[in-house]
Amino acid sequence: MPTNTPLKNDLILKALRGETTERTPVWMMRQAGRYLPEYIALRNKYSFFERCQNPELACEITLQPVDIVGVDAAILFSDILVVPQAMGQEVQLIEKIGPLLPHPIQTLEDLATIKVPDVKDTLSYVLEAIKLIKQELNGRVPLIGFAGAPWTVFCYMVQGKGSKTFDEAKSFYYKNPILAQQLLQMITDTTIAYLKEQVNSGADLVQVFDSWGGLLEPDDFLEISFKYIQQIVDAVKPLAPVIVFAKGAWFALPEMAASGASGLGIDWTIRPHIARQYAGDNITLQGNFDPAKLLAPIPEIKQSVKKMLSDFGPTRHIANLGHGILPNVPVDHARAFVDTVKEYQH
Amino acid sequence: MPTNTPLKNDLILKALRGETTERTPVWMMRQAGRYLPEYIALRNKYSFFERCQNPELACEITLQPVDIVGVDAAILFSDILVVPQAMGQEVQLIEKIGPLLPHPIQTLEDLATIKVPDVKDTLSYVLEAIKLIKQELNGRVPLIGFAGAPWTVFCYMVQGKGSKTFDEAKSFYYKNPILAQQLLQMITDTTIAYLKEQVNSGADLVQVFDSWGGLLEPDDFLEISFKYIQQIVDAVKPLAPVIVFAKGAWFALPEMAASGASGLGIDWTIRPHIARQYAGDNITLQGNFDPAKLLAPIPEIKQSVKKMLSDFGPTRHIANLGHGILPNVPVDHARAFVDTVKEYQH
Repeated sequence: MPTNTPLKNDLILKALRGETTERTPVWMMRQAGRYLPEYIALRNKYSFFERCQNPELACEITLQPVDIVGVDAAILFSDILVVPQAMGQEVQLIEKIGPLLPHPIQTLEDLATIKVPDVKDTLSYVLEAIKLIKQELNGRVPLIGFAGAPWTVFCYMVQGKGSKTFDEAKSFYYKNPILAQQLLQMITDTTIAYLKEQVNSGADLVQVFDSWGGLLEPDDFLEISFKYIQQIVDAVKPLAPVIVFAKGAWFALPEMAASGASGLGIDWTIRPHIARQYAGDNITLQGNFDPAKLLAPIPEIKQSVKKMLSDFGPTRHIANLGHGILPNVPVDHARAFVDTVKEYQH
Repeated sequence: MPTNTPLKNDLILKALRGETTERTPVWMMRQAGRYLPEYIALRNKYSFFERCQNPELACEITLQPVDIVGVDAAILFSDILVVPQAMGQEVQLIEKIGPLLPHPIQTLEDLATIKVPDVKDTLSYVLEAIKLIKQELNGRVPLIGFAGAPWTVFCYMVQGKGSKTFDEAKSFYYKNPILAQQLLQMITDTTIAYLKEQVNSGADLVQVFDSWGGLLEPDDFLEISFKYIQQIVDAVKPLAPVIVFAKGAWFALPEMAASGASGLGIDWTIRPHIARQYAGDNITLQGNFDPAKLLAPIPEIKQSVKKMLSDFGPTRHIANLGHGILPNVPVDHARAFVDTVKEYQH
């Protein structure tokens, strides 16, 4: 079985267990896609869902940054919106614009059109891709599976498209809490089954992305977002380590640190020592380089990366960006980020 | 002189001095415009710059929320982008889309096309509007003048339009720090002169809006944004109280609290007691109701407002939203926010 091939590089898994590693491990959110010319060539030939749904293409794209930039983990090429799609909602991904869900959930009748699916059926293409990726990786680095946090997925399902404020999604919750909680629970149940199957198919760890958790006020975040993330962590952590990344939700680091997750992603607006103070000493922190700083000249990138590594210290840290890599980052700048981490001596 | 009419309601000025007030004062960012039917009627008749540049229209719009919603201050109806316009850059404001600056600053040659203007000349229409507003207010409530923070204005001047990341503006700074600092200083010099003239024309206090300061990492915020805000505070505070609102920049509350500003705006993602802990006891905090929560049913708005007021306590607090009011807020919801503050007994 390819999934049983021992890992040659397990730095990230060690860091998540709090073990001492010879150096800080590194990967980049959104590393598969966007800025890589090899990816853009495929994007010009295949639609987003073709790239996602064809296991060979998804595998090729997932492996590109491992080969080209030399990161310490692969992360599955996919999208958080495959979940609402599997639940029965139409999802379009429009190049350079973003997601469009032409029939947003707004009433009880809308809710009746979606369901908690059998993910082994509706998302079989992801599970096939994972098996193929594990085989092709052949133990070089671990594979990260992922899903959106229920609140973030809910934002798109209700608002129907990207937004700076997701005020329609919030408003829907405030006006129809029972209905909203029902939808959040359906997303949660689907996500738990989906992440478990990702692990069963070979994912070595998983990350939950809450891109819009930081738009909620602290009490609302705990009630509307974190409560469901906690269910996911509880269900998945017996199978594989879980990293929770709730962008902008620095205020809830203490609660997230107590969730049982192995790692917490943090964005670039929180100083490492403050993040450590909030999260405590028993959890691994992942981040937090400003993605826009990869547009700076390479000597400045190197200097800033070294400062970040020094600030986090040698253990319980996975070097990463504070959010996804930007599409306009030159590949040699991304490589400078990764190489600086790999060469750094604590 | 109309500007010398004594204020009948000076709650906000008292709160900014740390004096005890009979109740918490209240206003709302972006209260003039957007959600008010009386404003929308004018918007359908006049372009944005007609509304800004005609002192009678600007006065009428500024006074609308005082009459309709009963806030404790008027804030000048204008836009932060009148500054780049006065500096010689073309600015378009496209309804429902946002600002467009068709010739963004990208080179030394671009920089040569703009200048630090004589604001008494180029922005005379604002100063005329302020005089008229003060006359029409006749001392009912104070008038707040405002400007954008230099970094936020720089974001638009360099990126040329709105952005989630303002990565081109950041990248410009990282690649051309000398040129960028020159531009930031020109914006700062213009803004200082502009705010001084706003006060000379009758503004009772001013607010500096740094909408995009929170996109910078903490060290960059201090160097690229706060350094210039500090110059503004130093120059303006001898004339009038200054409120600094840097959205998302909770991490720099200690530095901002030490700036000499009388008040700090905070957004809804920071708990009041944490904000107080970071800012210390000697500065007034303004905020921090989630603007999207004004879309909740009125009983929930009232309950959340009371919690906010209780959390901040009876002194050194000005009730406000954590960002601008959303265009889709019903007027009676805005009024419920204001009324709940006015009726609350600490």
